[in-house]
Amino acid sequence: MEMTTVKSIFRNKETYMDKKVKLGAWVRKIRSQKNFGFLEINDGSFFNGIQVVFDSSLENFDEISRLSIASSVIVEGTLVKSEGAGQEFEVKASKIEICQKADLDYPLQNKRHSFEFLRTKSHLRPRTNTFSAVFRVRSAAAYAIHKFFQEQNFVYVHTPIITGSDAEGAGEMFRITTLDLNDLPKKEDGTVNFQKDFFGKSTNLTVSGQLNGETYCAAFRNIYTFGPTFRAEYSNTARHASEFWMIEPEMAFADLDVNMDIAEKMVKYIIRYVMDTCPEEMNFFNQFIEKGLFDKLNNVLNNDFGRLSYTEAIDILKKSGKKFEYPVEWGIDLQSEHERYLAEEYFKKPVFLVDYPKDIKAFYMKLNEDGKTVRAMDLLAPQIGEIIGGSQREDNLEILEQRISELGMNKEDYSFYLDLRKYGSFPHSGYGLGFERMIMYLTGMANIRDVIPFPRTPNNIEF
Amino acid sequence: MEMTTVKSIFRNKETYMDKKVKLGAWVRKIRSQKNFGFLEINDGSFFNGIQVVFDSSLENFDEISRLSIASSVIVEGTLVKSEGAGQEFEVKASKIEICQKADLDYPLQNKRHSFEFLRTKSHLRPRTNTFSAVFRVRSAAAYAIHKFFQEQNFVYVHTPIITGSDAEGAGEMFRITTLDLNDLPKKEDGTVNFQKDFFGKSTNLTVSGQLNGETYCAAFRNIYTFGPTFRAEYSNTARHASEFWMIEPEMAFADLDVNMDIAEKMVKYIIRYVMDTCPEEMNFFNQFIEKGLFDKLNNVLNNDFGRLSYTEAIDILKKSGKKFEYPVEWGIDLQSEHERYLAEEYFKKPVFLVDYPKDIKAFYMKLNEDGKTVRAMDLLAPQIGEIIGGSQREDNLEILEQRISELGMNKEDYSFYLDLRKYGSFPHSGYGLGFERMIMYLTGMANIRDVIPFPRTPNNIEF
Repeated sequence: MEMTTVKSIFRNKETYMDKKVKLGAWVRKIRSQKNFGFLEINDGSFFNGIQVVFDSSLENFDEISRLSIASSVIVEGTLVKSEGAGQEFEVKASKIEICQKADLDYPLQNKRHSFEFLRTKSHLRPRTNTFSAVFRVRSAAAYAIHKFFQEQNFVYVHTPIITGSDAEGAGEMFRITTLDLNDLPKKEDGTVNFQKDFFGKSTNLTVSGQLNGETYCAAFRNIYTFGPTFRAEYSNTARHASEFWMIEPEMAFADLDVNMDIAEKMVKYIIRYVMDTCPEEMNFFNQFIEKGLFDKLNNVLNNDFGRLSYTEAIDILKKSGKKFEYPVEWGIDLQSEHERYLAEEYFKKPVFLVDYPKDIKAFYMKLNEDGKTVRAMDLLAPQIGEIIGGSQREDNLEILEQRISELGMNKEDYSFYLDLRKYGSFPHSGYGLGFERMIMYLTGMANIRDVIPFPRTPNNIEF
Repeated sequence: MEMTTVKSIFRNKETYMDKKVKLGAWVRKIRSQKNFGFLEINDGSFFNGIQVVFDSSLENFDEISRLSIASSVIVEGTLVKSEGAGQEFEVKASKIEICQKADLDYPLQNKRHSFEFLRTKSHLRPRTNTFSAVFRVRSAAAYAIHKFFQEQNFVYVHTPIITGSDAEGAGEMFRITTLDLNDLPKKEDGTVNFQKDFFGKSTNLTVSGQLNGETYCAAFRNIYTFGPTFRAEYSNTARHASEFWMIEPEMAFADLDVNMDIAEKMVKYIIRYVMDTCPEEMNFFNQFIEKGLFDKLNNVLNNDFGRLSYTEAIDILKKSGKKFEYPVEWGIDLQSEHERYLAEEYFKKPVFLVDYPKDIKAFYMKLNEDGKTVRAMDLLAPQIGEIIGGSQREDNLEILEQRISELGMNKEDYSFYLDLRKYGSFPHSGYGLGFERMIMYLTGMANIRDVIPFPRTPNNIEF
């Protein structure tokens, strides 16, 4: 007999009712009495488990009665209406085959475990309700992003992970090497000879796919990347990881307004998709992780995002009467407390800030006519702070070259990037969405370590 | 007036006919005479370009007549039936705004360039017909893979890129470090002290997400990964790259037959999706890159893949009467010449080989009852050779531990993996699809460097 899944039963219960079913699954709970018992099994296909009733008519009744948590079983039986409270239907078992009895030292017995403890069991935590919900939502959100862009004819580009550039400007980098560190080849001056390294030069892990992505934007009009990026920074905060996934769309013949339109549509699309396809998981988050999550997300869906300039934001912050740890002055890089005041308290919804001072933004952002601000755009979300950062790109070769030399950067390193301004330069814009921050926003989970399957942070590389 | 796209016009030509249109695009070709001229423009949204007719009624007629290849323009005009041969419709321009005149040294002027030359211009090559087609197909195929698995309730898992393991067994690894190589911290014995490194230990780039993926299979039943993987091998062949993307599904309560069923369905799904959504690109490949491509792919779609054991394959090879460079004997690792004979000449279609000798396969593959073969499965495709490698996994703790010690591997390194066999072990299977090999198979492109946007190979890390 072919196996079905718990999800299939939940979604098509009328079809299965009073029929034979077969399930492969793991035991989450067990209660047994002298002549009968109940298993709650979960087969991973669905957030909810299903109850199995077994009785002493089964030849291995005694063995089943003593099954340990996490044991794997193959159950055959009939789906019947349940008379007990708590579930609408259950499987009346005619046969239960035990695949393996889990060792009794299984670390996730049925009691509450702290998220911190569960991080030390990253290989087992997706078997808990919370992490089962988190990582199913993560998968759905990833797919929603692909669907959103593909439906609008964006080309998905795999930008490189290993880069020969050591100055993409977005943060500290990890070095990649195949040199024997205990026997490094040296140059005459005694420094390491990277010409002997695998790629014939010094190489690093990428911090952003944007510059490469722009080259494909010039060929395909609208593109997006979705891949891992890296920061070798010793920031042990709840919002930073050394390895995380980023989505970077880039759009030709698009100014900052188009950029904001697409970003806003995308965020709403992801929320709607996840709420539609993961109702059980989202209910769980709304009930147990962030009270009011649905209100928050519905508020996002039903309102236009705020849009204002950095300069206006500074005014609002100054007039707020709030005591900020970092004083507010035009020209400062906004701190988390400022961003959160704007999004959480003032606007009470996600808000785009545009036209930042050029000195606090990257070299590739388009200079405004005032000569002191650039066409940058950040999306600030309540609780999370910056969730998206983007800009219209500088498409004027001379201005771009001037910015590069002003900042003491090496023009040769950017020759491929400058080529885009020589050979058919065009107005274009793009942004980066930190995927994990989006998942935190969607689920209410407060620590980035709890929305990445196997998080990498300073001194932490388990599994 | 809002811009439209060339794709939108091609797909909805009746709607646009005799209407005003506005396009932002790049000049691919130009012909001009005294009072009129033609531009062929491409806006990146579509494989095909569109012809623009302009005449001396435009105030910047002279400037347009002298436009260089690759220049960017914004064209307004009316879509009209074309009287010329070669196109069904064209845009009669009422206004052509020049965004930027491309420098005259644009390297991709209209003549044939070798793929080898174009590799040195990876940032510009997607603007050519061939690479525009390749990378649009790559994007469509990536989406097809997500769609295929998501429709079947597989959970997408981002397995880690940086790993603390230095022995995943699939090949040579790249080291990741933030240590200053010119001033390395040393231990008392004079060797490098990796406790001072970013993660507090020696770390590498992943060669496979499988082991981590299996842990999520135990939680979600069916999962897949789709991410970059790395090999630090000095193999300068047309089929190897140092950085490539891999898809690794893993299925619970699934034996090797289910594994083959899913792999075959997936390959067919990808082919069908790409043929349906990229007809212009696929026509191009069929005409110019691999004559007979459609026959090959239709043959795949319309036939069941071959399935036979390694032992049967050895028999066929021995009886073939062919002189192979590497002699055929039970126990050998099949070489490309053997794989291609089986797929190309004998079966003339993709063929699964199963039950390989355990000594040539990885430690985690399930031992057969004969004690000398394992439940491995490779999919061999004509021209490409191995395109998928997979297996049923060893789910018996004792046998797995024995294999690990037989191979001199360190049990502690695999404790999380062994936990899966302690806490609810279950039959499961999975495989890895090399994404680039799939793209080569789909397009007929013969070199892996030509199906990755920015290829990384030994001594090659441009862009």
